[in-house]
Amino acid sequence: MEIFVYQKGADHIDEGFQAEKLPELVANPENLVWVDMESPSKGDENILADVFHFHPLTIEDAVMTRNQPKVEAFPDYLFFIVHGVKVETNSRNFATKELDGYLGKNFVVTYHHENFLSIDKVKRQIRSSAFVCGRGADYLLHQILDELIDLYLPIVDDFDDAINDIEERIFQSKNANNEILEEILNLKRNVARLRRITSKQLQVLYQISHGEFPLVEDAHLPFFRDVYDHLQRVSDLAESYRDLIGGLLDIQFSVVSNRTNEIVKVLTIFSAIILPLSLIAGIYGMNFENMPELKTRNGYFFTLGFMLLVTIALLVYFWRKGWIFEKDDDEKSERK
Amino acid sequence: MEIFVYQKGADHIDEGFQAEKLPELVANPENLVWVDMESPSKGDENILADVFHFHPLTIEDAVMTRNQPKVEAFPDYLFFIVHGVKVETNSRNFATKELDGYLGKNFVVTYHHENFLSIDKVKRQIRSSAFVCGRGADYLLHQILDELIDLYLPIVDDFDDAINDIEERIFQSKNANNEILEEILNLKRNVARLRRITSKQLQVLYQISHGEFPLVEDAHLPFFRDVYDHLQRVSDLAESYRDLIGGLLDIQFSVVSNRTNEIVKVLTIFSAIILPLSLIAGIYGMNFENMPELKTRNGYFFTLGFMLLVTIALLVYFWRKGWIFEKDDDEKSERK
Amino acid sequence: MEIFVYQKGADHIDEGFQAEKLPELVANPENLVWVDMESPSKGDENILADVFHFHPLTIEDAVMTRNQPKVEAFPDYLFFIVHGVKVETNSRNFATKELDGYLGKNFVVTYHHENFLSIDKVKRQIRSSAFVCGRGADYLLHQILDELIDLYLPIVDDFDDAINDIEERIFQSKNANNEILEEILNLKRNVARLRRITSKQLQVLYQISHGEFPLVEDAHLPFFRDVYDHLQRVSDLAESYRDLIGGLLDIQFSVVSNRTNEIVKVLTIFSAIILPLSLIAGIYGMNFENMPELKTRNGYFFTLGFMLLVTIALLVYFWRKGWIFEKDDDEKSERK
Amino acid sequence: MEIFVYQKGADHIDEGFQAEKLPELVANPENLVWVDMESPSKGDENILADVFHFHPLTIEDAVMTRNQPKVEAFPDYLFFIVHGVKVETNSRNFATKELDGYLGKNFVVTYHHENFLSIDKVKRQIRSSAFVCGRGADYLLHQILDELIDLYLPIVDDFDDAINDIEERIFQSKNANNEILEEILNLKRNVARLRRITSKQLQVLYQISHGEFPLVEDAHLPFFRDVYDHLQRVSDLAESYRDLIGGLLDIQFSVVSNRTNEIVKVLTIFSAIILPLSLIAGIYGMNFENMPELKTRNGYFFTLGFMLLVTIALLVYFWRKGWIFEKDDDEKSERK
Amino acid sequence: MEIFVYQKGADHIDEGFQAEKLPELVANPENLVWVDMESPSKGDENILADVFHFHPLTIEDAVMTRNQPKVEAFPDYLFFIVHGVKVETNSRNFATKELDGYLGKNFVVTYHHENFLSIDKVKRQIRSSAFVCGRGADYLLHQILDELIDLYLPIVDDFDDAINDIEERIFQSKNANNEILEEILNLKRNVARLRRITSKQLQVLYQISHGEFPLVEDAHLPFFRDVYDHLQRVSDLAESYRDLIGGLLDIQFSVVSNRTNEIVKVLTIFSAIILPLSLIAGIYGMNFENMPELKTRNGYFFTLGFMLLVTIALLVYFWRKGWIFEKDDDEKSERK
Repeated sequence: MEIFVYQKGADHIDEGFQAEKLPELVANPENLVWVDMESPSKGDENILADVFHFHPLTIEDAVMTRNQPKVEAFPDYLFFIVHGVKVETNSRNFATKELDGYLGKNFVVTYHHENFLSIDKVKRQIRSSAFVCGRGADYLLHQILDELIDLYLPIVDDFDDAINDIEERIFQSKNANNEILEEILNLKRNVARLRRITSKQLQVLYQISHGEFPLVEDAHLPFFRDVYDHLQRVSDLAESYRDLIGGLLDIQFSVVSNRTNEIVKVLTIFSAIILPLSLIAGIYGMNFENMPELKTRNGYFFTLGFMLLVTIALLVYFWRKGWIFEKDDDEKSERK
Repeated sequence: MEIFVYQKGADHIDEGFQAEKLPELVANPENLVWVDMESPSKGDENILADVFHFHPLTIEDAVMTRNQPKVEAFPDYLFFIVHGVKVETNSRNFATKELDGYLGKNFVVTYHHENFLSIDKVKRQIRSSAFVCGRGADYLLHQILDELIDLYLPIVDDFDDAINDIEERIFQSKNANNEILEEILNLKRNVARLRRITSKQLQVLYQISHGEFPLVEDAHLPFFRDVYDHLQRVSDLAESYRDLIGGLLDIQFSVVSNRTNEIVKVLTIFSAIILPLSLIAGIYGMNFENMPELKTRNGYFFTLGFMLLVTIALLVYFWRKGWIFEKDDDEKSERK
Repeated sequence: MEIFVYQKGADHIDEGFQAEKLPELVANPENLVWVDMESPSKGDENILADVFHFHPLTIEDAVMTRNQPKVEAFPDYLFFIVHGVKVETNSRNFATKELDGYLGKNFVVTYHHENFLSIDKVKRQIRSSAFVCGRGADYLLHQILDELIDLYLPIVDDFDDAINDIEERIFQSKNANNEILEEILNLKRNVARLRRITSKQLQVLYQISHGEFPLVEDAHLPFFRDVYDHLQRVSDLAESYRDLIGGLLDIQFSVVSNRTNEIVKVLTIFSAIILPLSLIAGIYGMNFENMPELKTRNGYFFTLGFMLLVTIALLVYFWRKGWIFEKDDDEKSERK
Repeated sequence: MEIFVYQKGADHIDEGFQAEKLPELVANPENLVWVDMESPSKGDENILADVFHFHPLTIEDAVMTRNQPKVEAFPDYLFFIVHGVKVETNSRNFATKELDGYLGKNFVVTYHHENFLSIDKVKRQIRSSAFVCGRGADYLLHQILDELIDLYLPIVDDFDDAINDIEERIFQSKNANNEILEEILNLKRNVARLRRITSKQLQVLYQISHGEFPLVEDAHLPFFRDVYDHLQRVSDLAESYRDLIGGLLDIQFSVVSNRTNEIVKVLTIFSAIILPLSLIAGIYGMNFENMPELKTRNGYFFTLGFMLLVTIALLVYFWRKGWIFEKDDDEKSERK
Repeated sequence: MEIFVYQKGADHIDEGFQAEKLPELVANPENLVWVDMESPSKGDENILADVFHFHPLTIEDAVMTRNQPKVEAFPDYLFFIVHGVKVETNSRNFATKELDGYLGKNFVVTYHHENFLSIDKVKRQIRSSAFVCGRGADYLLHQILDELIDLYLPIVDDFDDAINDIEERIFQSKNANNEILEEILNLKRNVARLRRITSKQLQVLYQISHGEFPLVEDAHLPFFRDVYDHLQRVSDLAESYRDLIGGLLDIQFSVVSNRTNEIVKVLTIFSAIILPLSLIAGIYGMNFENMPELKTRNGYFFTLGFMLLVTIALLVYFWRKGWIFEKDDDEKSERK
């Protein structure tokens, strides 16, 4: 647990306080107190209850994970749950982590089981300049949320890359490929998760940024709206990716079906040309004693010639059906 | 029918009253009375009408099953219908059971044809500690609903397992498999049912938890909101499972189509290579008297050699088409 | 045209009045008058205009069929159009029939071209007991609507049976079957019609049951809400059937595609095993003079042995591909 | 440009006025003036600006075509754009044409580049009876819109016929048929257009018929609502056709896939039975010197017998797989 | 940076001012000042902050690209972001470019990194006639937006052409064609982007055109509504193209599946006719010593005759199945 205190008008923040000093620090309205509880202990929980007197249900929510984003107003404070994201290395999955927190008149409490890059970044910021703290507790919260939401964008960009990559492979790979299907399914699932998370989170940010809570100063609403806009963009992109991924499956399916068509065509042409020739050969391979053709001088060569005729006739038939010798056509349209 | 009575300020609850005492017990505003009617008899119905004077339509609803969740306000009481769930053993189906009930100023009546684990649990709770009763009839109702909704989560987790299981089998099974289709269909149906039930139930909980009914104390609203949040989570998951299951069907279909493509390719390659060779053999199997090649010394070996050439030519053709010898490519992409 | 008159306080209803008496009967506020016009004549139309002075547009609507359900308020009366259903014998189709009507302070007029079982039932009820009439014109209307909506449920149950029946046949039938497709299409159409009808009708019942019209007493609203709930249930089921039917088509398609896959596999295995063997036989069927193998003592038996080897090799190949000898696997998973 | 004038209380309308008289005619509040501009000239445009002083943007809209239906209120008049339809002969397409117009206290201006059957019909009506004009400008407008919307119904009925026709052909045609696909696509497009047009138009009629504009008398609202109801019906049908057409494509696809399955089955059965027999024949066609069977007395007949056995075995195999001799089963289910 | 100044009542605009004069020019309420910053420098940014005192967040938004369209009201000015489009030459893609801007009582500031044809056009207009400026800053803004939105229509028309072109090629091309799939996918993506952009932009224009901002004069609202209507039309078309493109994929897929069906039919007919004949030939090619038929005088001709019979029988079989000789039928239906 780290405690940051900024005294109104000061040009720096103070750190390193013990938990025991908290009641006194918070009681002084001249102080802005930020309590950050990372991987919190049982003792931290007690502070929420004993020092801040937060509603027991909110403490229960904070202690548990797997909650959904929400914001709830209480007379003296707001309770919020938001979700951060982190890319898992060496994979296209992403994980979410929960950030619970409270915003009061002169305090911000953040409570999280996992490390947040965004919170670390805000700590560095306020250590180097007290400017953010000078604008009040709500602005400090804005700063934390802003950094947290900014980390969503790389996730979305990853999806974009993944979709393009899959699309390219669909058209290039020459074999029906279940591997691509697995990736599409995985991507679909990730995008669905992102959509679910962002949609809940947007509600939270909407409520905060549209003046619903008096604890957030009107002058700071545009800043929260800015965060809202960023998340809205993430959400819109996720929504449009969903459509595209659904399309990928259709396209993959169509490509496979086109290829099957191509393969069956090859089979059919081969069979339809060679089977009749084999029949002719078979007929003259029969052992009847009385088969006049067999004794003619050029029967063999006439037969070969006839086979050639049949072959040509069938090639013309398939050519007119448009099944062969259409290469030029393709090349033309490619050049176009 | 069991009757539980808690007298204001007491530290325990009283049990074992006869139905005859009910009017008197309920009339005393110092009492909190919980009447639980399990597998109710005709006599129980009469109590609803004669002792509590509930609206006849609500009694009719309670007696019948197959109603949808709802909550209706009457001047002195609320009537509600909610649905509990139970997993059926040895299957992935779940059943619902109806819980009808009334909430009054100082009483709760629950009426159900089937046994509810959640109600049994609340009974054990109030027997061991009167705390819940001490907070009033609405809080007692909250406790019942809370336990009831908590039993939805295992159902949802089962779905998650089932989806993952099916997905794995789709990719692993080497044969087109109607059995998987039946499971997908069954899962789809179950998820659809869960969605239908939860969506109605959410309305009920929304109405109760947003202060629509004065019988529910404002101070207890956060507790009902908590129950609402839990059910909302169930509903959201069910909604996202629906999408995933729809996707499973597409994936299964794509996988089968990929496999058919693969099979047709094998057929085509075999046919296209062997049919021409057979034709050659057939030609030299003809019985024409004048076939010069037959008499040459090495005709047979030249022919075998020619067959080899044809085979190689066709293999090269299919290799350039990308239909064979692509294993390395797959392995590479897997390694990636 | 039948006229039923109930005088306030009476314990029975009077019947058999002539049309001429209507103005007088309706003018007396102590009377509740129900005029039921079945297969109405031109004279009946005139009564609507001359005796009741209904708006000409409503009369036009009543005379015409193929209107959509609606309810319209006029200063002294309500005009409504609702639809009843009837199952067509020996088929899975259902027909709708239009019931037009007016509700006034002390009268109900029903106007319909076809016979309604529900109306007949209400007539029997009020003949045997005047209780319904004693509660006023709006309650009488409720009774009619209640009976009418109750007849929707058998339709919905029929759909449920039909879906289960089709599903079973999809999985059992061993042949691709256009007949099933036709049934699915027909079912889809019927469910779409039911959804369309109920959605309009729900609006009508919503307006009536939510106190929008002063002609309906507040005390009777719960009764109309009950009717609304019943229809809502029909509508919800129809909605969920729609999803299921869409799924049936996908499943049917998947099953056929699985079967095609299975068939192609059989074809491929047969071809791939027998074609090479035929080639070998063909080679030794050639008539070259110099074919050393032909003269060896055991050439024939070696060749047969070689054929056996090739067969085994190919069987192993297909077995490792998972295309044959997987029966055990299936049985296992079925036993599971 | 035609000008119709009805003087309050008169029993006929006057016609044949010159454009110069218009300002005077309109200025007299006792007159109801209808100016119908068909294939309007530049001079007609000027009248809109100079005589009626309409907003320049509305005049621009009127002059241009390809606008969407809308209605806009100005202090003294309403401007509206609605679309009529006409069936194109010898095809299943329909065309739309734009009708722009103004409604004032005592005038109606209609402006259209194409001929409207509905407007011609209203002219004939008011020439034979001044009744419509006697009810005011808004009622005259209602009459025009009513006739215009009535012409939508034949379009919708055509769609219904087309869907049934296509459905029948899908099931009856024995060949995969791109022609049907083209028709489905065309139908889809037409229905989409109809939906787009009606949805915009419904908004217009909703606004007019729900008392939004004081220029429309309250007493005439039911008449506009009636027009709205008719269009609503067209829109609902178009919406449901959209679903059905989407279903047709699925069904067509399923039917083709069923047929492919059937064809592949025939191929497989033929191949699987004849290929083994050919192999046997091929084996005994080999020219090995030492093939003992060849010399036996009944070898040939035993071989033929063995071929018969193989054939029977394979037929039994396919029969047990359910691929052949299932006709009876089909007939049974048809009889059902 | 270009500065245009129009003094109230003047008949021309002044140009060529230096940035230093801006504060003075803007301070004079008799002036209408338009500052257009194209490819703006750091100095331009400073002017936004120092001269106009715009909110820092809006300046940040303006400097960055990749924002979404929005409009935000501040006490003295509006900040807006809209997107223009440009067709990329030699392709069916389109690009968007961002236009940020401010509208004040007597000024318009436009800020963009790329050149806008629409802005150039408005400059030419106001240079040739001060009429637009005479109507105020909001009307000048309207003019810019109007020109900007008008450039969307060619994009939409391009889509229409592309869809028709693809549709034609689907039905005409005789080969399964992944190229068409790629185009469909590309088109889908472009339409999705257009829908996303227009939907956000519609919100912006809706807010401006419905009197939400006092800076826009009521008398000018119809002009903004006109721009809104134009964009609405673009949006509606994009929406309907989305449907059509989804349909194209289905149709392409159906066409390929029809063609595969056709190909498989050819294969089946060839195989089913020739395989049995080959078998007969094979049987009489066996080398059994005792094959009585071989010695008969006409055995060979009888066999040929028998082959002919088999061929005819099979052709009749396939003809009755409707697989061959159906050309007439097709021609008939085409003629229809």
